[in-house]
Amino acid sequence: MQIRVYYEDTDTGGVVYHSNYLNFCERARSDAFFRKGLTPVLEGGHFVARKVMADFFFSAKLGDLLDVKSTLLKMNGASFVLLQTIHKGDEKIFELQITLAYITFEGRPQKINARTKELLGSLF
Amino acid sequence: MQIRVYYEDTDTGGVVYHSNYLNFCERARSDAFFRKGLTPVLEGGHFVARKVMADFFFSAKLGDLLDVKSTLLKMNGASFVLLQTIHKGDEKIFELQITLAYITFEGRPQKINARTKELLGSLF
Amino acid sequence: MQIRVYYEDTDTGGVVYHSNYLNFCERARSDAFFRKGLTPVLEGGHFVARKVMADFFFSAKLGDLLDVKSTLLKMNGASFVLLQTIHKGDEKIFELQITLAYITFEGRPQKINARTKELLGSLF
Amino acid sequence: MQIRVYYEDTDTGGVVYHSNYLNFCERARSDAFFRKGLTPVLEGGHFVARKVMADFFFSAKLGDLLDVKSTLLKMNGASFVLLQTIHKGDEKIFELQITLAYITFEGRPQKINARTKELLGSLF
Repeated sequence: MQIRVYYEDTDTGGVVYHSNYLNFCERARSDAFFRKGLTPVLEGGHFVARKVMADFFFSAKLGDLLDVKSTLLKMNGASFVLLQTIHKGDEKIFELQITLAYITFEGRPQKINARTKELLGSLF
Repeated sequence: MQIRVYYEDTDTGGVVYHSNYLNFCERARSDAFFRKGLTPVLEGGHFVARKVMADFFFSAKLGDLLDVKSTLLKMNGASFVLLQTIHKGDEKIFELQITLAYITFEGRPQKINARTKELLGSLF
Repeated sequence: MQIRVYYEDTDTGGVVYHSNYLNFCERARSDAFFRKGLTPVLEGGHFVARKVMADFFFSAKLGDLLDVKSTLLKMNGASFVLLQTIHKGDEKIFELQITLAYITFEGRPQKINARTKELLGSLF
Repeated sequence: MQIRVYYEDTDTGGVVYHSNYLNFCERARSDAFFRKGLTPVLEGGHFVARKVMADFFFSAKLGDLLDVKSTLLKMNGASFVLLQTIHKGDEKIFELQITLAYITFEGRPQKINARTKELLGSLF
């Protein structure tokens, strides 16, 4: 997924505000659903971030065109782990390892059923 | 209501990103409810922006401390109009006239009942 | 310009947070420059919002695909006025009239020279 | 530092958008400077996020009042590590370990001099 950096993404330091790289990764996760005509809000629940580990290597600036790539690292019973990287041209500027838990609409953790596991496997 | 400008509010131009002044005004509107132990989500519905007219006079920068003031301009049947100003010290840097419509949780416009009008009158 | 609605654009009301429609319009303005290999930060200065008038007709939701169109309404000596609309399918959900002032990097208003006027005329 | 949750902080899932907890922690870091009449932009440079590790335990909602606490974990030659927690009442809802690198205004890493180390030690 390609993402352009706009004014709203930057801060007075002249570069992208740090937490916005996480937003870019979230867009890529949702986009994996949208591109298949689906939505990340499933019939029985949705996903929330449980844990993130991120490294910031270089900064992006206004107008930069970034590439976000997502790879499924691990599927657990009630969560899964993605590796997401952001490149600017050939250079990796950001890397995220994120654990996403599957919860009910009331906010309770729940098991990811076989069908949803299969779906996630096909998306990432 | 006093609002401090943080990194996230600024952009690469070195000043507050234009639409964030509207966010500051929204915080002030919600805060009027919170300070009384209430919430802007009422029993029968909530408010959405229908129309805004805003003037940007001066810019705010990282670390600035801003004052937001809200005055009720007009109460209609299904909406009301607020005048909100943002000052930095003695200087008015932003002025907003915003029309807020009262809608049901399904998104349909609805009349503001007498009790809610009274509440709004006491808040702004 | 097409814009997809992501989680970050929405709020707990279930729809796009009001001021984010202004962000979408700003993306479209910057994109007009980016698509020609240019940037909205010109040699001698850049543009800031001076006045906005906006109408919110309908709400957009997570996953919606929106179209932003921009038309030059008026060119003044030191500012210009754009009409920007956001459509969701055939339905106009948002309309913005925005006055953008040309300022130096020190923040002082300045005349828009003939070359920049020509550029703006070709973009919008 | 106390932080109120406003509409802009939430998303259509009904809770605070995940990366905004990082913003809350950034506010607390900047606020440590502001409260002493200082700014996080120092004479010789400023700080950028280099690494984050975060755990999301519970969600915050519109109107919640959150407490952010920051503790200096480690001072390195050109960076330092903070532990930041967000509590909602007695409950810890978020924990962040963040490595902040000191860089010049041109973006190059640089050593944190003794005076700046002392300052950071007094703030966190």
